[in-house]
Amino acid sequence: MLEPIANLERALAKLPGLGRRSAARAALALVREKAHLLEPLAQALQAAQAEVCCCSRCGAFTVKGRDPCAMCTDPLRDGGMVCVVEEPADIVNLESSGAFRGRYHVLGGKLSPVKRLGPEKLRIAELEKRLAEENVGEVLLALSTDMEGDATAGYLGEILARHGVKVSRLAFGLPADSGIAYSDPLTLRRAINNRLFTF
Amino acid sequence: MLEPIANLERALAKLPGLGRRSAARAALALVREKAHLLEPLAQALQAAQAEVCCCSRCGAFTVKGRDPCAMCTDPLRDGGMVCVVEEPADIVNLESSGAFRGRYHVLGGKLSPVKRLGPEKLRIAELEKRLAEENVGEVLLALSTDMEGDATAGYLGEILARHGVKVSRLAFGLPADSGIAYSDPLTLRRAINNRLFTF
Repeated sequence: MLEPIANLERALAKLPGLGRRSAARAALALVREKAHLLEPLAQALQAAQAEVCCCSRCGAFTVKGRDPCAMCTDPLRDGGMVCVVEEPADIVNLESSGAFRGRYHVLGGKLSPVKRLGPEKLRIAELEKRLAEENVGEVLLALSTDMEGDATAGYLGEILARHGVKVSRLAFGLPADSGIAYSDPLTLRRAINNRLFTF
Repeated sequence: MLEPIANLERALAKLPGLGRRSAARAALALVREKAHLLEPLAQALQAAQAEVCCCSRCGAFTVKGRDPCAMCTDPLRDGGMVCVVEEPADIVNLESSGAFRGRYHVLGGKLSPVKRLGPEKLRIAELEKRLAEENVGEVLLALSTDMEGDATAGYLGEILARHGVKVSRLAFGLPADSGIAYSDPLTLRRAINNRLFTF
């Protein structure tokens, strides 16, 4: 295998969702179709490298020259409600639900003793600063439903409560288009305990 | 979605093996981890763009300044036998079998009326030139076993026979680690017609 192609394959294999085999196929396709595949990707990477940065307020991605980001400055969004997420990618998913029209705050991860991620590594101080400055009434925690996400929610909940802000969490329960047969015991237990009385 | 990230996602989605969803995930991972993911990939693409080219003799990938390529000039390879493949990627697979130690010739595709790929688009003239220059005794056709591959093999076989060279084709039959239950009727028919008398 040629060195430049092997290097390309290695760089591609590090991307999420691309296994060793797909990376090899993609690397060969890139050098075979330089004009169609390689150059557009190289240019897009260069542009992303140069233009994309993080909003200093919410931590989401934005483009240079636009800080605070478009969502932080959108007058149609409810500034009184802030949704806390772990990663910028989470915002994309929440936005596609269309159910939230407040602002966001990216933590940059969740508490994890294993990965040595303590509270000082998360953007918690930035969040506390926003509470006062932006007159926030409610913080919605949209964190993972695993142990680390739960621990992070608990930790944040205490801090935020001290600031006198309302704190909520995404509901637990059955996912859409699923069934009892596909659900794990913990999900079912939570779905029972949080059962809805809608009739 | 930010424009530079959307562009990156589009460029990634064109790669084989990356669907729309994986491309979106990969794009976000790239801008999140610029130093770890984006920069190595950008550099690898730039290097591949600058260094990788095609061997003027066999058509496989090589690096600039090395034309003919390493395989074309390897004295340990049997110059009397040339294996014809459709794409450079095919060489990687054949090499990993370890069963062929001759030289290669990349056609650049197969005959396809649908894709308007006629013989003039394939590197056939280059192959004929090599027959004389390199004193080739046998050409092994390692082409797809679909209709287009068969048509290409038939077309090439006639031309090559006129040059007085021996022409062979990869065997038809059952793939390894498979079984009758997973085989299609055409494969089975060919496996029966080409049955081996090894006992």
